[in-house]
Amino acid sequence: MAVITSVDTYDVRFPTSRDLDGSDAMNPDPDYSAAYLVLSTDDGPDGHGFTFTIGRGNDVCRAAIDALVPYVVGLDPDTVDLGAFARSLTHDSQLRWLGPEKGVMHLAAAAVINAMWDLVAKRAGKPVWRYLADLSPEQIVDLVDWRYLTDALTPDEALEILRAAEPGRADRIARLTERGYPAYTTSPGWLGYSDDKVVRLARQAVADGFTQIKLKVGADAADDVRRLKIAREAVGPQIRIALDANQRWDVAEAVDRMRELAPYDPWWIEEPTSPDDVLAHAAIRSALATSAPDGGPIRVATGEHVANRVVFKQLLQADAIDVVQIDACRVGGVNENVAILLLAVKYGVPVCPHAGGVGLCELVQHLSMFDFVAVSGSMRDRVVEYVDHLHEHFLDPVVIKDGHYVAPSAPGFSAAMRPESLATYAYPDGPAWV
Amino acid sequence: MAVITSVDTYDVRFPTSRDLDGSDAMNPDPDYSAAYLVLSTDDGPDGHGFTFTIGRGNDVCRAAIDALVPYVVGLDPDTVDLGAFARSLTHDSQLRWLGPEKGVMHLAAAAVINAMWDLVAKRAGKPVWRYLADLSPEQIVDLVDWRYLTDALTPDEALEILRAAEPGRADRIARLTERGYPAYTTSPGWLGYSDDKVVRLARQAVADGFTQIKLKVGADAADDVRRLKIAREAVGPQIRIALDANQRWDVAEAVDRMRELAPYDPWWIEEPTSPDDVLAHAAIRSALATSAPDGGPIRVATGEHVANRVVFKQLLQADAIDVVQIDACRVGGVNENVAILLLAVKYGVPVCPHAGGVGLCELVQHLSMFDFVAVSGSMRDRVVEYVDHLHEHFLDPVVIKDGHYVAPSAPGFSAAMRPESLATYAYPDGPAWV
Repeated sequence: MAVITSVDTYDVRFPTSRDLDGSDAMNPDPDYSAAYLVLSTDDGPDGHGFTFTIGRGNDVCRAAIDALVPYVVGLDPDTVDLGAFARSLTHDSQLRWLGPEKGVMHLAAAAVINAMWDLVAKRAGKPVWRYLADLSPEQIVDLVDWRYLTDALTPDEALEILRAAEPGRADRIARLTERGYPAYTTSPGWLGYSDDKVVRLARQAVADGFTQIKLKVGADAADDVRRLKIAREAVGPQIRIALDANQRWDVAEAVDRMRELAPYDPWWIEEPTSPDDVLAHAAIRSALATSAPDGGPIRVATGEHVANRVVFKQLLQADAIDVVQIDACRVGGVNENVAILLLAVKYGVPVCPHAGGVGLCELVQHLSMFDFVAVSGSMRDRVVEYVDHLHEHFLDPVVIKDGHYVAPSAPGFSAAMRPESLATYAYPDGPAWV
Repeated sequence: MAVITSVDTYDVRFPTSRDLDGSDAMNPDPDYSAAYLVLSTDDGPDGHGFTFTIGRGNDVCRAAIDALVPYVVGLDPDTVDLGAFARSLTHDSQLRWLGPEKGVMHLAAAAVINAMWDLVAKRAGKPVWRYLADLSPEQIVDLVDWRYLTDALTPDEALEILRAAEPGRADRIARLTERGYPAYTTSPGWLGYSDDKVVRLARQAVADGFTQIKLKVGADAADDVRRLKIAREAVGPQIRIALDANQRWDVAEAVDRMRELAPYDPWWIEEPTSPDDVLAHAAIRSALATSAPDGGPIRVATGEHVANRVVFKQLLQADAIDVVQIDACRVGGVNENVAILLLAVKYGVPVCPHAGGVGLCELVQHLSMFDFVAVSGSMRDRVVEYVDHLHEHFLDPVVIKDGHYVAPSAPGFSAAMRPESLATYAYPDGPAWV
């Protein structure tokens, strides 16, 4: 019998705003940050987890993680029921008032839940994607909080989905291990970059084997058209160029702006408006259904700011999106993302995770690989975002090869930061900040 | 010229769980609490504000209020643009990541925005309802953050609504001052109360002049039927009995349970399911459209946990609710509630605010009175919740007379707690807790 003996929390911030890395129309000067925790046991490895923020307020998330510590200390990681554990964090009768299941408390729950997954997978000697992929359909269904989902998806329907994917698991594990999982890159497209830098990085992305890139839009309309035009000229017609407006528009403006950009064949428009606005996404998607140069749709994508499974459920029920963009730390960690992966299969919509930030690539690759092996069974039109920032701070950083994520082999969730990074970038007293 | 010189924050908690006051199916043991702040100036009165929580996590909200202090200190309360000020809190480019506009950061923004309104109204020598009711339609429109609203309501449409209500303002102020604003009471209906206590308090409510009461439901089905039956017998057929399930059900269960309760003529079902679930509320409302004993609808109500104006907008666009339940502290304070009041008029749905807790009655009465004078111009089917808890801790507590809120006359937002209450119930070091 092992026991979790203590939880240490950290406020880690990287001064990324100094170089305009990560700049977009809504977030002009982010300092990529992590509210980070370590679960220590009396026996064996630690569990690491974090939630991602963009600077100010990282301390508020750390305080929220501290509020969840009583639910973790004393648990035995070898016998913990991971479904019940996740629900204990999101359904505390007093803390639930602060959401429910959204905002700071949910970001904190994600950090703690993911830390527990890191710990449990390490103790099992498996990377998280493989730990998940080795569970039975029944065990996977038990991870999910089914409250508020049953009008769209029942546990029995989920079991059917998972059982249908069972026969091919071994083949898909082999394929994943051999070829990896497709990535796309946002590195060329930050709003603060010059035209020359956009062209140079877009060409480099193609040379590196990526078949999809992404550009930020949503500030000046003429700038958006010019940047998309030069990027399209730089990469040619075969490379998919996704656009990301970071929630800047109302419905009419989103439709007008995208029609101006349509001649340059954008693959999707991400976050055209508020992430809470199911009906607005449905209206935008409908208005753009024949706007592509070939008369097809401009796809609508969202998810990095979608608060929880209830909002994803509605986006799917309302035919509001073409692409589900899960985030490893926005919703309630692995467990709630399993629910969203199942919903996406039910509605036939591909999942293309949000990543970037600090460590989001490291985490979310596991979820897409699990999805491929045991849930959707498909990589078609599926790509995981990749941004080449800050990976050097992780002990088991992502590896990209020919535009693909290489399947992680180290046990755990690839979540652990280097101790020297935790110290150097500690806010406000670390050497990077004083 | 005056200036805000400092902000002091407090974690105040009342041990209400000891008596099961406030108990419901989702919140069995709340300790009613306030994350509280005082804006001090170099000249004249202080501004008081708070957000309401039910215990654990109140410290997280206080940390979030602390994160907003840089936006307040140094402002001149006599020249501050209250619209721009509110937007500065909710659109900070880094803090926005933690929501956007939801959860802990939005609760904190509400506290700070409401404190500023308290301060500004005190300096003008008016209660907040009257300060608002004396603004021009143009000034009221400028209070609102119009982002994400224009597919449902434009600033020009809002101006039309407000101009249409202008001619009768003086008459309605006189009527309000004379008769007050109708209240309903939830005091009889807490889930932890015995049947005898429910009957006794229900009869007392009628004797006190209330024409509507509310009961909690959502735990045991047979208990719900029994309690509603005895309450109906106690108050007779003319008193409206609202029910509140506090988010306990999925769609099918909500419909089934309400059909069982329908013979006892419930006036509305509040929070039948997740507050994020626009489509579920629409489905439930549709299923109950002819379920009342007279073949009419059982109304659907929600709002105390609705995160922001974007979700309210969709609830109205989707015909999902019959009753809009604003909360003074859940969304971004006075400003965002003005937006919601305007949306409700556009869609012809009455506003019946959520109150109770700590100080929510004190605050929200101002918003309904402003709505009557300057926005909807109507009290029809409109009632403000009233719960007789914890008013003794306020310097200017609500006054209920013949089932009506008496219009406040003291300058400000009725938000200030007694200094001795702030000290006694300070958590964890106040005498009530040690």
